[in-house]
Amino acid sequence: MYDLAARMFPICRSITGNGFRESLNIIREIIPEIDIHEVPTGTQVFDWTIPNEWNCSGGGIYRINGEKVVDFSDTNLHILGYSTPKDEIISRDELVEHIYTQPDQPDWIPYVTSYYKERWGFCMSEKQKQTLSEEKYHVVIKSTLEPGSLTYGDLIIPGETEEEILFSTYLCHPSMANNELSGPVVQVELIKYIQSLSKHRYTYRFVFCPETIGSITYLSRNIETMKKNTKAGFVLSCVGDNRTYSIVESPYANTLADRVLTNVLRFHYPEYKRYSFLKRGSDERQYCSVGIELPVVGFCRSKYAEYPEYHTSADNMDLISPKGLQGAFDVMVKVIDTLENNYNYRMTCKGEPQLGKRGLYHEISQKHGYDEVSILQDFISYADGNNDIIDISDIIGVPTTKLISIKDKLIDNELLEIVG
Amino acid sequence: MYDLAARMFPICRSITGNGFRESLNIIREIIPEIDIHEVPTGTQVFDWTIPNEWNCSGGGIYRINGEKVVDFSDTNLHILGYSTPKDEIISRDELVEHIYTQPDQPDWIPYVTSYYKERWGFCMSEKQKQTLSEEKYHVVIKSTLEPGSLTYGDLIIPGETEEEILFSTYLCHPSMANNELSGPVVQVELIKYIQSLSKHRYTYRFVFCPETIGSITYLSRNIETMKKNTKAGFVLSCVGDNRTYSIVESPYANTLADRVLTNVLRFHYPEYKRYSFLKRGSDERQYCSVGIELPVVGFCRSKYAEYPEYHTSADNMDLISPKGLQGAFDVMVKVIDTLENNYNYRMTCKGEPQLGKRGLYHEISQKHGYDEVSILQDFISYADGNNDIIDISDIIGVPTTKLISIKDKLIDNELLEIVG
Amino acid sequence: MYDLAARMFPICRSITGNGFRESLNIIREIIPEIDIHEVPTGTQVFDWTIPNEWNCSGGGIYRINGEKVVDFSDTNLHILGYSTPKDEIISRDELVEHIYTQPDQPDWIPYVTSYYKERWGFCMSEKQKQTLSEEKYHVVIKSTLEPGSLTYGDLIIPGETEEEILFSTYLCHPSMANNELSGPVVQVELIKYIQSLSKHRYTYRFVFCPETIGSITYLSRNIETMKKNTKAGFVLSCVGDNRTYSIVESPYANTLADRVLTNVLRFHYPEYKRYSFLKRGSDERQYCSVGIELPVVGFCRSKYAEYPEYHTSADNMDLISPKGLQGAFDVMVKVIDTLENNYNYRMTCKGEPQLGKRGLYHEISQKHGYDEVSILQDFISYADGNNDIIDISDIIGVPTTKLISIKDKLIDNELLEIVG
Repeated sequence: MYDLAARMFPICRSITGNGFRESLNIIREIIPEIDIHEVPTGTQVFDWTIPNEWNCSGGGIYRINGEKVVDFSDTNLHILGYSTPKDEIISRDELVEHIYTQPDQPDWIPYVTSYYKERWGFCMSEKQKQTLSEEKYHVVIKSTLEPGSLTYGDLIIPGETEEEILFSTYLCHPSMANNELSGPVVQVELIKYIQSLSKHRYTYRFVFCPETIGSITYLSRNIETMKKNTKAGFVLSCVGDNRTYSIVESPYANTLADRVLTNVLRFHYPEYKRYSFLKRGSDERQYCSVGIELPVVGFCRSKYAEYPEYHTSADNMDLISPKGLQGAFDVMVKVIDTLENNYNYRMTCKGEPQLGKRGLYHEISQKHGYDEVSILQDFISYADGNNDIIDISDIIGVPTTKLISIKDKLIDNELLEIVG
Repeated sequence: MYDLAARMFPICRSITGNGFRESLNIIREIIPEIDIHEVPTGTQVFDWTIPNEWNCSGGGIYRINGEKVVDFSDTNLHILGYSTPKDEIISRDELVEHIYTQPDQPDWIPYVTSYYKERWGFCMSEKQKQTLSEEKYHVVIKSTLEPGSLTYGDLIIPGETEEEILFSTYLCHPSMANNELSGPVVQVELIKYIQSLSKHRYTYRFVFCPETIGSITYLSRNIETMKKNTKAGFVLSCVGDNRTYSIVESPYANTLADRVLTNVLRFHYPEYKRYSFLKRGSDERQYCSVGIELPVVGFCRSKYAEYPEYHTSADNMDLISPKGLQGAFDVMVKVIDTLENNYNYRMTCKGEPQLGKRGLYHEISQKHGYDEVSILQDFISYADGNNDIIDISDIIGVPTTKLISIKDKLIDNELLEIVG
Repeated sequence: MYDLAARMFPICRSITGNGFRESLNIIREIIPEIDIHEVPTGTQVFDWTIPNEWNCSGGGIYRINGEKVVDFSDTNLHILGYSTPKDEIISRDELVEHIYTQPDQPDWIPYVTSYYKERWGFCMSEKQKQTLSEEKYHVVIKSTLEPGSLTYGDLIIPGETEEEILFSTYLCHPSMANNELSGPVVQVELIKYIQSLSKHRYTYRFVFCPETIGSITYLSRNIETMKKNTKAGFVLSCVGDNRTYSIVESPYANTLADRVLTNVLRFHYPEYKRYSFLKRGSDERQYCSVGIELPVVGFCRSKYAEYPEYHTSADNMDLISPKGLQGAFDVMVKVIDTLENNYNYRMTCKGEPQLGKRGLYHEISQKHGYDEVSILQDFISYADGNNDIIDISDIIGVPTTKLISIKDKLIDNELLEIVG
């Protein structure tokens, strides 16, 4: 995962354009089954319109003598996202009005865009801005902003039922690692995981799109099916660092997605952080918006907008790690395994079953601690047909990973059945 | 408000009699639309019967030489409320049995009544009682206790709908300022506020009555309409001091009145105090009683029975202030404005709307704090048709005063509609 | 109660056999109405089968010279429960494999059984085990393990309705006092209490059975009636010490049994302990199991498995006391009295009733504390037909014992009626 992120890191991506396409094609080298979709500029998608396509091949700020101040080849963050083209000698005063910095982090270059209002500009560190002392500068932005199309990719892996689990991430940020190459590379690994399963109950839908306009576009074309089938969904964003794990709840924190991710995080990493939907910021905004209302939560390690490097040049390949990415992947695998086994279970016999005759009980009755037999007995006590495996896990305080093997043992002994 | 209270302060009021009538007529000088009702002694009102009318024109305790010990003209609190007439020379021992003091506040004269058991008596400070050393005293109570009527006033200001908001306060206490001239004078100001509105959705019902027997009488004559139409009601009592704000909850703390007053106080004065219905004591007792069960709460600044001056001569014009009365008025205006705007709202578009094209969004995408745009987006996120404006305010933590202007902006942009 | 326990203490009881019968017959000397039932070995009871009957008349470990190491006549705990017969000289090494001790309590003899796996063995203190130094020992177990029957007793005392309250306890433990002679002797006293009542609304069902297999057997024969009629049930176990009071909740802690016992304990002994159903361990396991699902909780003083003497020779007649048993009895009497009076009540009049004319109110209106009148008024405020007496007690914070007399007073005054 880390190597794939490193390969895509230098590419200049935006919500439209060749950088996005190039990155998606690199992913398709690994998962060729991903479908690519192009939606032309001007297409109406719900309340929005697909904007012009933006491409940028270079640019920078130069002294009159040609010396470089900043250049696109150093980092594509230097050019304001969706900047209009420019090639002009201008005064320092005019230039400064078009420079974006982040004064509270004077060494870092911020990531800034202007998608829906035409303007031009540069981003640099506050420190560098303070050194601009010439009277005039030569500014160059080799960009195009013309009718084209918005690109996204998706992959649907059919399961035994039409009920769907959604994973969605975005690929529209330029050279930033955690936010957001971590999401796409973890999602690639999850696709490989699903493809490796001999069978699975759910149909899995994976979406790679630009943020906001991309998920709106995607929803405008797929909402009917998704409303009918989606049982739970996860927006993967900022899943590459090592610091913590986070859930961004759905508006009422009451969907299957909230329940399963909360349950897994509770046992996997008890210090995980919960953010209410008021702290939303990625595509859960669209999936959970009024009129859409899908059962979707956000999953992060350090949540976007909550870590210092967010949306700056410091969100680079040093911020993420193989271990950080693997941790996020592991959580999502537990989520998937829990969902695949998440039925309401009911005991088949009245009263407690005689576990002893099935070799499931202590032979000697003396004081025992909380052991495998206790877990099995607690499972049985709440397998009354009203609880799914997440409920039982929450009630008895034992991870679903453990309960799944106990459930299999009980089914083998014909002591348990699936309800409904 | 303060001046009106000061004018009424010296009058000797009780649950019946001319003091109540005189006070109500002073209020009618300001609000002539108030209707006066007289209910004859002996009338059955639910489980109760209108008692004889009581009037008192003077009285006191005097030494045999004619020197005054206490006199009605100093403060009407000296005569036990509903005291039978008396003009007799009696022994000190007999007198002492008819004197009421408040030993824990030895300087203050308590306010005591005996409405339903005929007796005579005087109230004085504990300190003064200790000085009674003569063998005999001349006691005089110039009162009448005869068939007459109970008086109350009400005013109904029709709105666009028959749905009603109730305000009720009582005018039966003699010379006490916070409890209870503050309620009537704030209510007068609220009537003027409603009269000043160019239009209003709700019909407003304002009641000025004696406490307990008065609200029971009022309910016995109006319960059918009130049960059908009342959406929320507020008993105003002790709303003139500066110390805090309080809500006395309805029995289950779950009515619209509980919700709106809690919401307003939460933002207006976060340190406000909540009292359960177990701490009730004013006319919410009747409005919320079994079989009546109207959605009514009590609103106070320092709650009756919870401040030291309560029901004593220290509850005088120094305890209340123009600022204290204004604060209570301001809260009730916020309550009214919230109720008038309290609909369930629903977004008209699917997905987040594009705020930018309507000038409602930041033009540049860089990190932002929690600002006007965030509030608008949070409002939108919960405007799903299931929440009214109080719900949304409670969820997103922004006062309804703020949300009302945002709601208007969204309606102007055809992004929001009222549901149901 | 204490004397009855003392009389039964020495008897060697088990889940079957003559010790259980003898003990039950001692109880029948006091309550001759108890029915005795015998269920033959081999009978299928739900998922279980009645095992062989076990009887033991003596045994021990002896040095080759005949000297006693341990002997059944000192305490029947020395023989492993359900031990197969034995009479053999064996090596120390072999013997040690058949000795059970409790190393964390080296002075005490543990109570150990092997009901469903045939084996033989002895229990002794860890200290004594350390002294075994001979090369060979003579081991004797004079037991029989043969087809016979399982014994239980029950008594149904019909009430005015068929609705039932269940009390269940077990009599299968050998010489242990708190766990479990306390349950049977308190239950005997409760039977006498019910028999002493001139009338009672509920039918009372009392069960004396062996633990687990006994309650399963009982349920397999009575489940239909019990499912239809049982409104609340209580498993009495470990109710003889002085240390605390405990409730073992039903699976969802939401039955009438949970509500009434919680309410009584809250006022009787506010420091009582709550244990979730995850801490279950006695016959509430069967009564609350999936498919049975009766509204049953466990009631203990110090809960089984939570006090150091549990399942050892230290759980002897010194651990329980007349006062300890009486305390548990008193709680259960309060539970019964509350249940007998537990209806939904509704006021018959609209608005607050005029208590004064019925002599139920203060004659003088001055400040009062929280007194009898306040309690009565609070009762009235929540007697709206939706609350039973437990609800009202919980809401207003007054014990049901107090509310029952107030309720009677209100009914006498025709101010209150029973709903539904």
